[in-house]
Amino acid sequence: MRNLKVFISYNGAEYHGFQRQENALTVQEVVENTIGKLLKIEPPVIFGCSRTDAGVHARRFCFNVKIENNIPCMGFVKGMNTILPEDIAVLSCEEAEEDFNARFCTKAKEYVYLINNKPARDVFMRKLAYHYPHKLEIEKMQQAAKLFVGEHDFGAFCRSEGRKRVKSTVRTVYSVSVEENSGFVEIKIKGSGFLYNMVRIITGTLIYVSEGKRSCEDIKTALETGNRLFAGITLPPDGLYLNEVYY
Amino acid sequence: MRNLKVFISYNGAEYHGFQRQENALTVQEVVENTIGKLLKIEPPVIFGCSRTDAGVHARRFCFNVKIENNIPCMGFVKGMNTILPEDIAVLSCEEAEEDFNARFCTKAKEYVYLINNKPARDVFMRKLAYHYPHKLEIEKMQQAAKLFVGEHDFGAFCRSEGRKRVKSTVRTVYSVSVEENSGFVEIKIKGSGFLYNMVRIITGTLIYVSEGKRSCEDIKTALETGNRLFAGITLPPDGLYLNEVYY
Repeated sequence: MRNLKVFISYNGAEYHGFQRQENALTVQEVVENTIGKLLKIEPPVIFGCSRTDAGVHARRFCFNVKIENNIPCMGFVKGMNTILPEDIAVLSCEEAEEDFNARFCTKAKEYVYLINNKPARDVFMRKLAYHYPHKLEIEKMQQAAKLFVGEHDFGAFCRSEGRKRVKSTVRTVYSVSVEENSGFVEIKIKGSGFLYNMVRIITGTLIYVSEGKRSCEDIKTALETGNRLFAGITLPPDGLYLNEVYY
Repeated sequence: MRNLKVFISYNGAEYHGFQRQENALTVQEVVENTIGKLLKIEPPVIFGCSRTDAGVHARRFCFNVKIENNIPCMGFVKGMNTILPEDIAVLSCEEAEEDFNARFCTKAKEYVYLINNKPARDVFMRKLAYHYPHKLEIEKMQQAAKLFVGEHDFGAFCRSEGRKRVKSTVRTVYSVSVEENSGFVEIKIKGSGFLYNMVRIITGTLIYVSEGKRSCEDIKTALETGNRLFAGITLPPDGLYLNEVYY
């Protein structure tokens, strides 16, 4: 039995996230069916590195799949890209150790939240960026971003349904950067793991900091008390990208 | 009577070009109807700086429109953007002289042709770039690009139906650049005016130069003889953007 480690990218606009669901189209379902079609087998189960919410994108997403077929890795990449719809692409494929699991072996993940900060909407970034037309206070956001770095209880930066799913809401954030480039603001967060909606709430809190609705003190309080009210809003999925997975 | 000079951008993927047509949705029709709705008048005729083909995009496109209404320019921009679909945006609006005409007053136009030159398709650039997966020979293309600069008869770089539309096929190209950046190749062409499919044939010829199917000598012959056979293919509209209009 081979264990293939595959990197894909996808435009999540038309999907209800990665993970298979009843009655809703997901990336997992489409990829599994495509593997089945390519190898002329029953669609196998693939193991993704992460759930992603409806509408969230992935620049690099990893899954592994166990197959018997001896198709060369290069042939797998080309064959998949011929059959897959235009909003999913296979970037690479390699043989992995038998015990490699794309979800449980991750060392870190990096997300990017992309904001169109120009006055007018960007007609080429529909569903690919969050449009925030008022000038963002980048330096204030950069100062506040530093507070998230380190091991913290991120319970205040987690959607309430998500808290019940996990044993602990403690996570380690390795870095948070806020960069402005040609009217777009990119917030990049790398961490050991992420809670439900954590990136969208952290970025929403940084927007509130720019607006003066939250202060650095509020963020410290949120991290100390786990009280969601000291954090900011949850930004929409359109601007969120899984940028990289580290093993 | 006011004469408004308006810049818009549009994602042309879903439109049959700018210019109004029977039985096909065009940018002109949508913009005219939106002005009618905003000002509660019969949709006025707008004068665009250019036709663009079906599927072609515009980063900056200018039109003028004569109206009686005294809506402030800023109100026009905001009101239009509230009503327009997400793939068209108004960038600016200003008062113009009575005799300003967006088509006839252009001094120059600049087009960009965008090529995804990475092995895999880019799921975020569907219908926004031409995917050419084989490594392009940028230096050869840059050498060949220089040959187009200057006043030439571009008859060989014009779709045959287009030749009959114009008195002369002589045009002046001010500059052609070929730049590679993070896997994307951007070909930028600025000129006095352009023939039907001229940019898509010039860029297709540069691709042929990269592939060794055409030489610099062939381009010189094409410019001297007007013989279409010495030029290259016509690239698809997906990668083409009207980048700027100069007055």
